[in-house]
Amino acid sequence: MSRWAPNARERLETAALDLFVENGYEDTTVAQIADRAGLNRATFFRHFADKREVLFGGEDVLAGLFADAIQAAPPGATLTECLRAALAAAGVVMTPQRRAAAAKRRLVVAANSELQERGLLKHTRVAESVTAALRERGTDELTARLAAEVGMLAFSVAFERWMKANDDEPFAPFADAALSDLRARAAELTTGQSRNGPPSRDIPASGTFSQVVAGDGFTPLSGELGRAHPL
Amino acid sequence: MSRWAPNARERLETAALDLFVENGYEDTTVAQIADRAGLNRATFFRHFADKREVLFGGEDVLAGLFADAIQAAPPGATLTECLRAALAAAGVVMTPQRRAAAAKRRLVVAANSELQERGLLKHTRVAESVTAALRERGTDELTARLAAEVGMLAFSVAFERWMKANDDEPFAPFADAALSDLRARAAELTTGQSRNGPPSRDIPASGTFSQVVAGDGFTPLSGELGRAHPL
Repeated sequence: MSRWAPNARERLETAALDLFVENGYEDTTVAQIADRAGLNRATFFRHFADKREVLFGGEDVLAGLFADAIQAAPPGATLTECLRAALAAAGVVMTPQRRAAAAKRRLVVAANSELQERGLLKHTRVAESVTAALRERGTDELTARLAAEVGMLAFSVAFERWMKANDDEPFAPFADAALSDLRARAAELTTGQSRNGPPSRDIPASGTFSQVVAGDGFTPLSGELGRAHPL
Repeated sequence: MSRWAPNARERLETAALDLFVENGYEDTTVAQIADRAGLNRATFFRHFADKREVLFGGEDVLAGLFADAIQAAPPGATLTECLRAALAAAGVVMTPQRRAAAAKRRLVVAANSELQERGLLKHTRVAESVTAALRERGTDELTARLAAEVGMLAFSVAFERWMKANDDEPFAPFADAALSDLRARAAELTTGQSRNGPPSRDIPASGTFSQVVAGDGFTPLSGELGRAHPL
């Protein structure tokens, strides 16, 4: 077992998710995860604070990617351009491996209410990161909070749709489409137009926002990314 | 100790919050709460599943009030009218006593990360209730989810501002103002107008959405209301 095993973080994540699905989250130990990955416990703890962070470390990565992208947007960028840049930045880590891991993660988190609560907290931390990044650009507090909520909802919707797509489809078009869809609906809210008739568009009714958030979050593939935004 | 003590729920809540603030949430027992309220443990458990529900039972009340109000809105009501009706319904339980209890609750929850996570879960359940109520009116899934997020943000903002107001001020005007403020900002999102300059309005930057949600939730005053929406 090499101290500097290649792809250690990714191997540990895969082993952990497989064991969580096979034996349950509660009944899986760090020793078992390390063993399945062909690594030792010390290596596990270099990458994750505990087994729960295998499931939720990715939200910290996401918070960092979003905030960095918003900070890097041109000075005159609109709110929507800032959100689009943030979601596009997330695309970097949206790989076929990520899609496979997220499907397992959904199963594990859905079976454990404590993990669902943890997922919501992590989701909130990501939203706070977006709010703070927008505020630093001079956006007023309430606008920043609203934009962050819209951005998080767009991310969740894009992620749901991307999860069902083919393995080689990139994330960015899903992010753009979700953001456009939400902007169109926000317009309905602001004009006061009634939408209480039958749905006029074919929107998949696949679970609520929070179900997606709690069960469908995001964990990092790359150890480098994980270390760039430690807990 | 009467089995049918008047205002038992309210007395238990007051006793619990006082003890949580004085001795900490973890170190307070149900027996102590009942004793302080001049009631017995059995009475406590008729009103609350456990001591945590003294802090979070109110979200169930809120979820019920919101959903009932949206269901009762006229068939042609716009999304904004539905949200306004929901927030107005919450006003019924926004009393001076509620304001005092919420201030204590904020202190208790802020000191305990597990309680913060629980608060987020409860907040999510309220949002889901709003989403479901809008969907039942024929609103498409994505619009319902967005409107629910906007409604929850409006509630949080209104609640923050109302908490700082005088004791005799009703909640409804705060709810209307918060909803109007958010609609104006949603318009900025949809037109693509830049808001990345200095703030043009005086919006208090008093904590993020989630801090408000986690620390500033809502617990019921009335036993009747509590029983109408049991856990």
